[in-house]
Amino acid sequence: MNLEKLRNKMKENNIDFYIIPTLDPHGSEYLPDYYKERAFVTGFTGSAGTAVVSKSDAFLWADGRYYIQAKNQIQNTGFYLMKMGLENVPTFLEWIKNNINKGEKIGLNAKYYLQSNFENLENILNDKDIEIVDIDLIKDIWEDRPSLPKDEIFIHELKYSGKSAKEKLTEVRSILLEKNSDLTIINSLVDIAWLFNIRSFDIEDTPVAISYAIVEKDKSYIFLDKNKLTDSVKNHLEEVAIIKDYDEVFNFVSDYNNKNIYIDKNKLNHKLFSSINSSNIIFSGINISEKLKGIKNKVELENIRKASLRDGVAVTKFIYWLKNEVLNREISELEAADKLRSFREVGENFIEDSFETISAYGSNAAMAHYTANKEKYSMIKNKGLYLVDSGAQYLDGTTDITRTIAVGELREIEKKDFTLVLKSHIALMSSAFLKGTTDGDLDIIARMPLWRANENFNHGTGHGVGYFLSVHEGPHSIGPRAKGIAMTPGMIVSNEPGIYKEGSHGIRTENIIEVIEDIENDYGKFYKFNTISFAPIDIDAINIEMLNIEEINILNNYHKEVYKNISPFLNSDEKLWLEKVTKEI
Amino acid sequence: MNLEKLRNKMKENNIDFYIIPTLDPHGSEYLPDYYKERAFVTGFTGSAGTAVVSKSDAFLWADGRYYIQAKNQIQNTGFYLMKMGLENVPTFLEWIKNNINKGEKIGLNAKYYLQSNFENLENILNDKDIEIVDIDLIKDIWEDRPSLPKDEIFIHELKYSGKSAKEKLTEVRSILLEKNSDLTIINSLVDIAWLFNIRSFDIEDTPVAISYAIVEKDKSYIFLDKNKLTDSVKNHLEEVAIIKDYDEVFNFVSDYNNKNIYIDKNKLNHKLFSSINSSNIIFSGINISEKLKGIKNKVELENIRKASLRDGVAVTKFIYWLKNEVLNREISELEAADKLRSFREVGENFIEDSFETISAYGSNAAMAHYTANKEKYSMIKNKGLYLVDSGAQYLDGTTDITRTIAVGELREIEKKDFTLVLKSHIALMSSAFLKGTTDGDLDIIARMPLWRANENFNHGTGHGVGYFLSVHEGPHSIGPRAKGIAMTPGMIVSNEPGIYKEGSHGIRTENIIEVIEDIENDYGKFYKFNTISFAPIDIDAINIEMLNIEEINILNNYHKEVYKNISPFLNSDEKLWLEKVTKEI
Repeated sequence: MNLEKLRNKMKENNIDFYIIPTLDPHGSEYLPDYYKERAFVTGFTGSAGTAVVSKSDAFLWADGRYYIQAKNQIQNTGFYLMKMGLENVPTFLEWIKNNINKGEKIGLNAKYYLQSNFENLENILNDKDIEIVDIDLIKDIWEDRPSLPKDEIFIHELKYSGKSAKEKLTEVRSILLEKNSDLTIINSLVDIAWLFNIRSFDIEDTPVAISYAIVEKDKSYIFLDKNKLTDSVKNHLEEVAIIKDYDEVFNFVSDYNNKNIYIDKNKLNHKLFSSINSSNIIFSGINISEKLKGIKNKVELENIRKASLRDGVAVTKFIYWLKNEVLNREISELEAADKLRSFREVGENFIEDSFETISAYGSNAAMAHYTANKEKYSMIKNKGLYLVDSGAQYLDGTTDITRTIAVGELREIEKKDFTLVLKSHIALMSSAFLKGTTDGDLDIIARMPLWRANENFNHGTGHGVGYFLSVHEGPHSIGPRAKGIAMTPGMIVSNEPGIYKEGSHGIRTENIIEVIEDIENDYGKFYKFNTISFAPIDIDAINIEMLNIEEINILNNYHKEVYKNISPFLNSDEKLWLEKVTKEI
Repeated sequence: MNLEKLRNKMKENNIDFYIIPTLDPHGSEYLPDYYKERAFVTGFTGSAGTAVVSKSDAFLWADGRYYIQAKNQIQNTGFYLMKMGLENVPTFLEWIKNNINKGEKIGLNAKYYLQSNFENLENILNDKDIEIVDIDLIKDIWEDRPSLPKDEIFIHELKYSGKSAKEKLTEVRSILLEKNSDLTIINSLVDIAWLFNIRSFDIEDTPVAISYAIVEKDKSYIFLDKNKLTDSVKNHLEEVAIIKDYDEVFNFVSDYNNKNIYIDKNKLNHKLFSSINSSNIIFSGINISEKLKGIKNKVELENIRKASLRDGVAVTKFIYWLKNEVLNREISELEAADKLRSFREVGENFIEDSFETISAYGSNAAMAHYTANKEKYSMIKNKGLYLVDSGAQYLDGTTDITRTIAVGELREIEKKDFTLVLKSHIALMSSAFLKGTTDGDLDIIARMPLWRANENFNHGTGHGVGYFLSVHEGPHSIGPRAKGIAMTPGMIVSNEPGIYKEGSHGIRTENIIEVIEDIENDYGKFYKFNTISFAPIDIDAINIEMLNIEEINILNNYHKEVYKNISPFLNSDEKLWLEKVTKEI
């Protein structure tokens, strides 16, 4: 058992507590298989969570999306679940603080530990005599560990990116100047991919290349595996940067003296941070590139609207197929996901999925991030609700869309919850707001229709979306843990409220929305949202009496747009059907 | 001219910039006339604002409520208006920072300067060589200055307060213990009145006694003018406190050594703060008493509901009178306010108004805090809208209610704006929210219906309301400057969105709402609001097509409650009318 092996290693090395976060050296959300240490140790395969092992205890902290999945996956591993976010459940830091004794040692791999988290750990232990040791206890116990990815790097062409690496570097440098900094160290893979207009396939569904980058006032450096470079990519990079080997970064950084260095403590790993010597002054904030990347340029916006429409055609065709097919036979969740991909694959510029499709029938959908696999999946029957949350990487944009589909007769409670989620979705999509309104301010707009019915969902309302990059990106997000970022035209964000009833059903309706300008008057500048995802929202699942006239108008207008945009790409049967399912209610 | 006299004094004392805030030594919102220095110097009589005078400039900073009034009142005084809150308008601190030169001196009266504001001032000047001088330049130039109030103090009986001073002191002490503090110094008059269950009439419309208090672990002290004490009040106070002379507080505080002292830097004046010697450790936060006071006890809640109903009877009778009377003749805004008071005065436990009534016809109502006076008032005609924002101090509660009344034919824009404000009011009153939701989170719920129509209002959505104390009280408030206080059952807050169109009309609809418990389920504890103000909302001013079915139901249910609660106290004509104006729409 992996837990036992780990405990043996802890004993050998005099480690009393070992922390295994879900991280790679780049603060990535999804990890190359090589870095999936927490999944290896605990069995839990979700995208977030922290494991802590002591001599007597072994806990996994997982968030609301994963309560059910985690509970199932960690059975018989020796780990117990801590439900993050529930009242009376300590955070893993609180738990360590309450359970550690003076003189004990905490072990962790500093390369996989964010600097901000490391400081939190130090802070909660500041009055105890605790040593934190940088040690890798996993490498010797993980026998069949996957290797690091070796894919080639390719250029994200200007017709897609809309801005050259040179221009982007100029923007970063002008902000460095404002921040009185000499250089910035970037370890975030999506930031580096965006900054240099390069992509690769080092992380599944996120087209990035494992690398570090440093931008100085006049020079910039990129640290990566040079074997991944073709001549043309090498030339592309050398126009703006000096190329160095991946592992050189730690020594390179340690050579800086007396500089003002801008970094993002929420992204940089503790090992790299520790390489900066104390003659330098550290400024910490959100990566400059992340802020720039979050506001899409005109070319990106035009492209992503097109990619989103193309994606909507695939989703619409899939819904038509599913609603017909399920009348005749049961369909496995896996087949449905494959079918949806087959509709996407024929689309222009399609590269891959943007995350593992959530294809979830009935009560499976109550697990907000359920994924069917060959060992465990359900058959979709001609009854109840089926939820599909999926997206694609296109060269000209990343998509993310969720539809919950009535695949047969519904219970009243399913219609009620579907309609509440729709009210919530409509509330956010129809928001207007004054300049300065933040991502966090808007969360309650989506939740209020649910709260009024004493419902809620244990995940964020929306997340930023990359551009042929990570499907979840910052700095903005709409949710209780939003960072207070002012919503600004050019920002793209998902709108995905839901309701989940364990053992019964799960509902989520998700579109991508973009912040656009509205009018300016004496009160200031007004902004609003423009929805750019197009696929029918299942009117079979609506309890129309629960919608007010404004909501009905918004839904009807949206469906009019869906028909207008999608129908030209459908065959005649599909078109007839779409006309019917997008008619005014 | 007062400005000229002040500049002469500045010159005499080598002061380059003089700051005149709107404050007394107690951080009071409304001031005894004696302390109205800013009004004396600038002519502007509003309840908030800051004047800054330099050799060459004289500016008054006023907030959105007062843009119009301030502009009018400072004409020909030499002062110019700075509209606080507008983009590109510097705060007074920014302005000082940008205009002061090394070596110059700032003068201010430290007794009237909050410690937090003083620290802000020091911070923005930290890289300049500026001296801040505690100096009173007003006392010699203000010839006919009013005297300090001398009213007797009386006891707020237990049947009203619901909790003895002894119990309240015990609660404060238990929180002091949690905060590891030896004592707390309180200068806030409403806090002292609440804590000791005393009242007086030292501030118009706010029944407090000028005083300081100190709560130690075993002893407590109250500093006040002993001439104000009857024997019974003296006995009442001496049961729990040692009574000292008002001016003794500065010396008394300076004698503390090596203590942990809890204070509220947003309330304490700089002079008193400076009296604490450096051997002590300061903990700063919201006054403990303010937090306790903000959550009403059961007796207070029962009483305030009754007082609020009594108040609603007066307002309802007034609306009936006005709508009939205006058919026959023009009515002055002053007469209307007097008439409203006459309806209130006959109510049980009525003491005084809780603030100066805003009785504003037509375009006057566009000034959110307009007050008619003998020199300047308008006649209410049988046309358009009339706004009346008023409240009363009852022994068993403080009220605050605004109605905007159609006194004749309305323009479409008036109906449209009235209905938008109603939608906003209904949105907040019908909110439900999970435990932990803060005052600031809720603001956008009220604004969204206006924002969607590209409207807004430049004031908070709601404020805490005292209990036979200040009509505005903390710690909670609903607005962009809310402090992030979790809304908790027992809190009372106003719900008062508005729309103001300069030169045309002003609309505000205000009720008091209380936070009450709703159900608890897997998501946590839900809370909601219960509206406790009762008076008809003018259906003559509604554009019914703009309301959705949910809003119509909420309005109809509210009007049903209004009729049920108010009609028993009306004469037969009034009752017939009320039935008509509260009928279902």
